[in-house]
Amino acid sequence: MTPISAYIARHSGRFLDELKTLVRFRSVSTQPEYRRDLLACADWLVGHFRRLGLDAKLHATKGHPIIVARTLRAPRSGVPTILIYGHYDVQPPEPFELWRTPPFEPFVRGGKLFGRGASDNKGQFFAHVKAVECYLKTNRPLPANVVFLIEGEEEVGSQALSDFVRKHAKQLRADFVVVSDSGMLAKGVPTITYGTRGIAALELRVDGPSRDLHSGVFGGSVANPAVVLAKLLAACVDDDGRIAVRGFYDDVQPLTRWERREFAGLKFDERTYARFLGVPALSGEKGYTTLERRWARPTFEINGIFGGYQGAGGKTIVPAWAGAKITCRLVPNQEPEKIARLVVRHFRKLCPKSVHLTIIEQHHSPTFLASPQGRGAKAAARALEKAFGRKTVFAREGGSLPILNDFKRHLRGEIILVGLGLPDDNWHSPNEKMDLSNFYCGIRMSAGLFRELSSQG
Amino acid sequence: MTPISAYIARHSGRFLDELKTLVRFRSVSTQPEYRRDLLACADWLVGHFRRLGLDAKLHATKGHPIIVARTLRAPRSGVPTILIYGHYDVQPPEPFELWRTPPFEPFVRGGKLFGRGASDNKGQFFAHVKAVECYLKTNRPLPANVVFLIEGEEEVGSQALSDFVRKHAKQLRADFVVVSDSGMLAKGVPTITYGTRGIAALELRVDGPSRDLHSGVFGGSVANPAVVLAKLLAACVDDDGRIAVRGFYDDVQPLTRWERREFAGLKFDERTYARFLGVPALSGEKGYTTLERRWARPTFEINGIFGGYQGAGGKTIVPAWAGAKITCRLVPNQEPEKIARLVVRHFRKLCPKSVHLTIIEQHHSPTFLASPQGRGAKAAARALEKAFGRKTVFAREGGSLPILNDFKRHLRGEIILVGLGLPDDNWHSPNEKMDLSNFYCGIRMSAGLFRELSSQG
Repeated sequence: MTPISAYIARHSGRFLDELKTLVRFRSVSTQPEYRRDLLACADWLVGHFRRLGLDAKLHATKGHPIIVARTLRAPRSGVPTILIYGHYDVQPPEPFELWRTPPFEPFVRGGKLFGRGASDNKGQFFAHVKAVECYLKTNRPLPANVVFLIEGEEEVGSQALSDFVRKHAKQLRADFVVVSDSGMLAKGVPTITYGTRGIAALELRVDGPSRDLHSGVFGGSVANPAVVLAKLLAACVDDDGRIAVRGFYDDVQPLTRWERREFAGLKFDERTYARFLGVPALSGEKGYTTLERRWARPTFEINGIFGGYQGAGGKTIVPAWAGAKITCRLVPNQEPEKIARLVVRHFRKLCPKSVHLTIIEQHHSPTFLASPQGRGAKAAARALEKAFGRKTVFAREGGSLPILNDFKRHLRGEIILVGLGLPDDNWHSPNEKMDLSNFYCGIRMSAGLFRELSSQG
Repeated sequence: MTPISAYIARHSGRFLDELKTLVRFRSVSTQPEYRRDLLACADWLVGHFRRLGLDAKLHATKGHPIIVARTLRAPRSGVPTILIYGHYDVQPPEPFELWRTPPFEPFVRGGKLFGRGASDNKGQFFAHVKAVECYLKTNRPLPANVVFLIEGEEEVGSQALSDFVRKHAKQLRADFVVVSDSGMLAKGVPTITYGTRGIAALELRVDGPSRDLHSGVFGGSVANPAVVLAKLLAACVDDDGRIAVRGFYDDVQPLTRWERREFAGLKFDERTYARFLGVPALSGEKGYTTLERRWARPTFEINGIFGGYQGAGGKTIVPAWAGAKITCRLVPNQEPEKIARLVVRHFRKLCPKSVHLTIIEQHHSPTFLASPQGRGAKAAARALEKAFGRKTVFAREGGSLPILNDFKRHLRGEIILVGLGLPDDNWHSPNEKMDLSNFYCGIRMSAGLFRELSSQG
């Protein structure tokens, strides 16, 4: 047993207590009534970093504060600088009634810590904090300059952090940027995520008559906005699950042979997955596997659709209007702005003159793709393998992590995504949990990662 | 001036006061809290009929009571029996804030009586009541046995009346059934409606994953229920506005040459109509005029569509389900049950296996078509022309009047629709009103109608 492993074993109970304390903060960034809870959480973290001997500062923003904590005020030369990103804000806990234990009263059951934010993202970044503690408290020289960058607005778009990174790019520059805000392919399968999808979101609204009309008296003589909407939307996806918007695939970077082979080799059971999602059958773009569809192919999704009468029974109207919220998940090298333009053009072209079409562009977020062969990725793979005792797999992620592009643009270092979440961690859902073995393995992995990144690998 | 015209002129103020009294009753049949108001309204009507010397009875039903009032307890032979249908229930008044004067405080402005139910249907059937009074109070022999059949559930489906008519068919049998629950093509244009459309309503629901899914993590690998719904719905209507459901038009009785010519000759300005509805342009089935589309061609309408996130901003989900409410307006000789079956088959055939499709059939109502050349229709045309001083036009109506089919099946007499409503009467909308010149002309028309129907025309 290494001194670090021994230290973890000796202090595991306290580590868990501290994580529970962190989860107890109701740091819900999207709901204004929790503002003080976010501040209290950030304060506690700054205090915690300082007690560990780090130079920690709270940076006020227009929104929730950002924490920067450095192992040394002035970076030591000769060792790499590693920036570790995390976020202390969490998703709203609603619906409360579906939680088996209250969301902000962390509760251990079956080796899992239940509570909002336990896995997304408090338990993940805190593992790195504890890894730094292991070095400092066992008097072992930290093989890197470690900088924690912890924000409170990940769940609401990271706008303040985006500005902060741009403004303090020089001070934050690092050789490696480590992000544990993703997942492992399955329990026990150490995973490096080297790509995320981007997103283009828009909302469209089809306006017809100035008011709901009697469908008997007037029906047949005016366009039904809901029918027009259905036709516009239906025309976006063909029967093979391909997106039928002209030019949509032009910039898509095809999967490499290596990736397709790698994905195909991953342990992934379609039947288990379908059962987990509760669908009668999987479905998607023809010619691609489920993992390819999730990670490396773009999508066209209706997130919401609405118009006319929604109550019980019927109401015989031609609705005055109907609308839908849409997101396209994008893959390298699709540009969100361009894709949004193509989709808007598609709708405009198809829309009949008998209605008014309004399209509102919502948020965009670019795609992210790192090399799975980078020096940092290879080092991280070794650290993961040692901690989890199993070969690291390389995966992509279907969701978006917009801040990665700010890091890429301003911080320069290689970005490494080592996720400690599990597919059933219930992120953004009731009964979120952190697997405690992942938390403890994560501490060991992080300690090893500092070493691997500083070695001349 | 005939004695009847003189009587109307002399008593016009009292007639209006009585109509106001009738409109003051809050006889909203769909909202349980108004039950007593409906009863009070029915009681008042029974009393009113009795004061005029009619044999009036209130018949209790499971819902709101039905009134039967006869000019003679035992019908006189040698003259025809005319049954006059009407309803004393009204639509809900909401939204209150859009009324210029309170819905149940009848108010005269510019020759119009404003109030909920003034035109639909109190003012219309009351004109017939006052016509009977004219005969009785001027001691002129009524040239017909008149029976009033007034219900309190027209706005909620006429279930009780349907049962009542079936059960008392023998006692209610009439040579002519006169219904004033429709409209005139325009102010000053006397109109006989000789056909109404039927309806088939259904609701469909597309269920995908067991819960809303993260559109990034899972999107692309499962069918999006809202996309499937849009595709199912879009496949129901082609680009020419024709319904693309197999067999849908098989039983449609084409417009006769006479009808197309008659409709084409009607004064109807498309631009005014489009402006009235607030649409940028009219639209409908290729090859048909606006009036043909409204009155004599079937439709496919989405009355409501819903699924996923509808709030402000976005939510990046694949919704667990999406649904829609649909009505098809039908024309002779389409059968609602058969059409519903065809539409259901269409959806089932197109629906992919990656979702569950649930279809709930809602209410049906058959089409109605009378001969515009019937003896009663011709007599009514003459009565209308005399009262309004202008040639009667023959029109159809796009809406449905389900009770007509019960009348047709059980009462045998020729059904005549002589509407006194105007297109801008705001039925089912705020600021409903009855044009008072239509009310008074309606009384004269009704008095003339009794004569015309009893003459050997």
